[in-house]
Amino acid sequence: MSQFKRLKLDLVKPVPSDYEISRNQVPKHISDVATESGITSDELEPYGSYKAKVKLDVLDRLQDRKNGKYVLVAGITPTPLGEGKSTTTVGLAQAIGATLGKTCFANVRQPSMGPTFGVKGGAAGGGYSQVIPMDEFNMHITGDIHAVGMANNLVAAALDTRMFHEATQSDAGLFKRLCPVKKDGSRDIPIGLTYRIKKLGLDINKINDWTPEEVSKFVRLDVDPKTITWKRVLDLNDRSLRGITINEAPTEKGLIRKTGFDITVASEIMAILALCTSLKDMRERFGRIVVASSKAGEPITCEDLGVAGALTAIMKDAIKPNLMQTLEGTPVFVHAGPFANISIGASSVLADKIALKLAGTPTSYTEEQVKQEEGYVITEAGFDFTMGGERFLNIKCRTSGLKPDVIVIVATVRALKVHGGGAEVKPGVPLPFEYTSENVEMLTKGCANLQKHIQNAKQYGVDVIVAINKMSSDTDAEHEAIKKASLEAGATDAIVSNHWEEGGEGAKNLAEGVIKCAQREYESQKEMENEFNFLYSLDGTIEERIEKIAKEMYGAGSVSFSDVAKEKIAEYTSQGFDKLPICIAKTQYSFSHDAKLKGVPTGFEFPIKDIKASIGAGYLYALADNIMTIPGLATKCGFMNVEVNEKGEIEGLF
Amino acid sequence: MSQFKRLKLDLVKPVPSDYEISRNQVPKHISDVATESGITSDELEPYGSYKAKVKLDVLDRLQDRKNGKYVLVAGITPTPLGEGKSTTTVGLAQAIGATLGKTCFANVRQPSMGPTFGVKGGAAGGGYSQVIPMDEFNMHITGDIHAVGMANNLVAAALDTRMFHEATQSDAGLFKRLCPVKKDGSRDIPIGLTYRIKKLGLDINKINDWTPEEVSKFVRLDVDPKTITWKRVLDLNDRSLRGITINEAPTEKGLIRKTGFDITVASEIMAILALCTSLKDMRERFGRIVVASSKAGEPITCEDLGVAGALTAIMKDAIKPNLMQTLEGTPVFVHAGPFANISIGASSVLADKIALKLAGTPTSYTEEQVKQEEGYVITEAGFDFTMGGERFLNIKCRTSGLKPDVIVIVATVRALKVHGGGAEVKPGVPLPFEYTSENVEMLTKGCANLQKHIQNAKQYGVDVIVAINKMSSDTDAEHEAIKKASLEAGATDAIVSNHWEEGGEGAKNLAEGVIKCAQREYESQKEMENEFNFLYSLDGTIEERIEKIAKEMYGAGSVSFSDVAKEKIAEYTSQGFDKLPICIAKTQYSFSHDAKLKGVPTGFEFPIKDIKASIGAGYLYALADNIMTIPGLATKCGFMNVEVNEKGEIEGLF
Repeated sequence: MSQFKRLKLDLVKPVPSDYEISRNQVPKHISDVATESGITSDELEPYGSYKAKVKLDVLDRLQDRKNGKYVLVAGITPTPLGEGKSTTTVGLAQAIGATLGKTCFANVRQPSMGPTFGVKGGAAGGGYSQVIPMDEFNMHITGDIHAVGMANNLVAAALDTRMFHEATQSDAGLFKRLCPVKKDGSRDIPIGLTYRIKKLGLDINKINDWTPEEVSKFVRLDVDPKTITWKRVLDLNDRSLRGITINEAPTEKGLIRKTGFDITVASEIMAILALCTSLKDMRERFGRIVVASSKAGEPITCEDLGVAGALTAIMKDAIKPNLMQTLEGTPVFVHAGPFANISIGASSVLADKIALKLAGTPTSYTEEQVKQEEGYVITEAGFDFTMGGERFLNIKCRTSGLKPDVIVIVATVRALKVHGGGAEVKPGVPLPFEYTSENVEMLTKGCANLQKHIQNAKQYGVDVIVAINKMSSDTDAEHEAIKKASLEAGATDAIVSNHWEEGGEGAKNLAEGVIKCAQREYESQKEMENEFNFLYSLDGTIEERIEKIAKEMYGAGSVSFSDVAKEKIAEYTSQGFDKLPICIAKTQYSFSHDAKLKGVPTGFEFPIKDIKASIGAGYLYALADNIMTIPGLATKCGFMNVEVNEKGEIEGLF
Repeated sequence: MSQFKRLKLDLVKPVPSDYEISRNQVPKHISDVATESGITSDELEPYGSYKAKVKLDVLDRLQDRKNGKYVLVAGITPTPLGEGKSTTTVGLAQAIGATLGKTCFANVRQPSMGPTFGVKGGAAGGGYSQVIPMDEFNMHITGDIHAVGMANNLVAAALDTRMFHEATQSDAGLFKRLCPVKKDGSRDIPIGLTYRIKKLGLDINKINDWTPEEVSKFVRLDVDPKTITWKRVLDLNDRSLRGITINEAPTEKGLIRKTGFDITVASEIMAILALCTSLKDMRERFGRIVVASSKAGEPITCEDLGVAGALTAIMKDAIKPNLMQTLEGTPVFVHAGPFANISIGASSVLADKIALKLAGTPTSYTEEQVKQEEGYVITEAGFDFTMGGERFLNIKCRTSGLKPDVIVIVATVRALKVHGGGAEVKPGVPLPFEYTSENVEMLTKGCANLQKHIQNAKQYGVDVIVAINKMSSDTDAEHEAIKKASLEAGATDAIVSNHWEEGGEGAKNLAEGVIKCAQREYESQKEMENEFNFLYSLDGTIEERIEKIAKEMYGAGSVSFSDVAKEKIAEYTSQGFDKLPICIAKTQYSFSHDAKLKGVPTGFEFPIKDIKASIGAGYLYALADNIMTIPGLATKCGFMNVEVNEKGEIEGLF
């Protein structure tokens, strides 16, 4: 592996805008970042100078290596301002990689462009802890989200068109067109339809001998329109498409139906990109996607539509993780970005697997050599630990077979004061007095929220480091109070970090703590053996799994299921989809389903309104809230500030 | 410039599938293709191994060069089977570049992925004259079409959201949100809104002194919903989206409206990508896009929406042409692909400009040196000469300031027989007898169609070479008949070409003829000076321009305008949009508006049903037909045959 070249930071105070900081840094060519990271030139596909795709071949080449250390960054229950989880992820990677000189990857999600042009800031971290170039990071990158949208929408077009053709043609007409008779009398059977033939138990070699009933079974998916769960997607905040009626052109013969668009990152295709473990696994998951039921109640899959192979073709490059770099030149994998509201909200399994091998060590190494040379992979879970971290552990880790060595929980004085009874905080509105002056009492009260997250994390058998993301108005007494509460709740340590203002150097203490914890060198760790365990097993019922999450993680007293939810549970159980992990969709602003309940609410009744399925991705999701799956644009939008200057640089992105 | 390395062809007969031929060739690394083409490494942005973007900086570096020769490939009125125009474009480039060893670029359009998964074949040529790798060519390439879709749909979201906010807020509320008051009392004015302030003649420095009427004028676009021309797009054949109703979610307060989706390549953003001459020009064209009228009848532009800068940011990489290669390793620019039905159906001005400079020679060269060293750029116009070629010359060349040195008109025996009275030909149906056996009489009769295209082309003051695209059942007598008719009509030569079966070697005679013609070395050329001229000027009325095209190019006796068309002409004239070139949308299967009229119909009344405007792209389009702007999928679709094999290769694409 070649010598790592650190990009020097030229720290300015007050900290300039994210975009100015990004533009003032000259990134390394991505092929240099790759070489430094142990990626061969054969394994790299550059996309311009600062982005590249990394082939999955790395996994074969390094299959015999021991993985590096795996660090999950999660958060406390946040405020709408965000508590700096992404920034901490990047800052910690800069500290371990650039300041301490160890191999270290930050693995992050690709941001949706919808919010980029809406109201939200970038997702590349911020201040002196960012992924660069930040404009490229926040735009198309290598087109993965576009590929996801294309694949998602091909499924929708295939489904609606099939319904149209079934409605307007006889069995014989459909059969003749789907499998035309060739000159020699045999039939031309598209490969995509062979799976359905197999599923129906029909003999492909005797296709010309099928009975009319068999032909009918094969050619008619007989979709029940009201069971369709598949929606179209766009990577934009286009509220007008939330609810639409389609098929209104005269050519569509009156087959109108109501549907809507989601934002692309909410697509199950994106969740599959995040969770799949190989090209073959991706292909199989695409085949298993359920888009509707037949009128007889049988699930209709992408395999039935004959579209799963084409989806794989569309996604064959998207499956390769994207390599970029931090402001200090350490490597970053940017890959997948499933919508946190209804999916796992974490970056991809494949990027983590590749990074862990690249950060790993040969099996021949002694324990001492491993300790000296092994590297770190820092990755992030969306929302707070109890939502994002729980899904990361119970869904993503169950799929990948990986487990984190350390969980970092990011806390801010600001958010903890909210949980201690402080006034509401809102973007664009000046912070109330209690947030800009010392108030240890309010803070200490709010620390109960942090403590519950720590306790929840410890249940999985993983040690916790609390990262106190420093803000300018914090006082030492406040930091001490957080530290005391953290240790009481079982955290291994709680460390103040100032990476936003100082880059990796500002997170040096945090980095040293994380490394010490990963190496199990804290006194408190020495007597205890950690054993990783999931919160729930996949035996038992869907209800039991939901109750376990709601009661043990959220603090609910009981769970209520709506009639719709009960029907869905019965349906999924009868279809054999009841042995899947559960993703619960609820507000991120409270442990409970009610955003107003700050601190640590307990004993509440947790309401499940509906249950939906992402069979291809491999989980059910239970809705405890009305989740908006395509955001809108504000009156004043992000896009209104954007221009491209004469040098071709984007201005005003953030 | 480094030595060109020819990729050897291993010709197999019968000719295998396009995909097999493509896969059996090992392409050069794209950086080698670039170096051979005179592109510096600083100017190249590789996207993987076989595709790259080329920066517009090339134009600055080579600005003092004389352009190479510019060859336009067009066709006769085709059959639904296609007459091999793209294949001839690529084959001719292989012949000039690989067989004859001159610098030669093929400039082609990026294909839409919609038809790729629908019924149409690839657009990369075919047989031994293709762009490779053909699967990458037919998929995302570098994501330009995705960027076009994103930009198009951001405009739609911006427009609908603005209408929503205007409908639900007071003037004061809109003003407060669009331009919030800062702490010091001044207002935060997004740069995107400054253009509207200027357009309205308001003083930005006195924003706080504006009268309520001025504020209202500024904050309210007051869009008349029934005038909205802007539609959303997807790069898919999704017929269900042809006609839809949006804004049906309860959050949208009942502001429902009817609209629809087009295929992405039909977007005006795509037309602008094809026609713009620089980043600055693209930005200005985006600003001029008209999406609707206000209730007072004033055009609403993207500048009024404040979105033009963001569109430029989305498209800043798409503007760079993509470099790929032919089967024999000669360079290909793939850039832009505006929908031929309602737009210019040609690749980009910028790709042509760059290629012409790269194929050009230093101004210091003697005439003899120029002749020895100058190169060729072969580009294509969609549909037949009289539709695609006319638009290429009157719209694209008017924008670029370039003019072709030679027009190649591709003809097949098959299509000419259709025009001579042969039975209808259809994809997937065996050819009737007259097409597979000699019939000089029918063919000769049909040659009138070719002759009319030749005469039409000659009107522009450009010499014509007819390329007879050879098929296996053709006879020498038939070829002779075409040649005779061609020369009679004023073609400089007519040459048989067999590039589909033999690659560049098969097009060697054609290549020599094209070079000889471009160098004006045919005897017939020696006495005549050619002067390029447009068919029409931009003075006069919209009606006059349409009549000129219909009568002089199509052979119409008269033109009728519907009431809608008349209203639109009045409206565009009053809005000052009447001095633009015209793109006429009609069937490609006849000179007339009626696909059934083969040969050379004359004297017909040509009906203009409607007129629409692409103000940003810079033309009006007149509809002589109901043009379908989003195709559908067939019962048996292209996607059903697609799989990805274990090596990650796409199978079954064509």
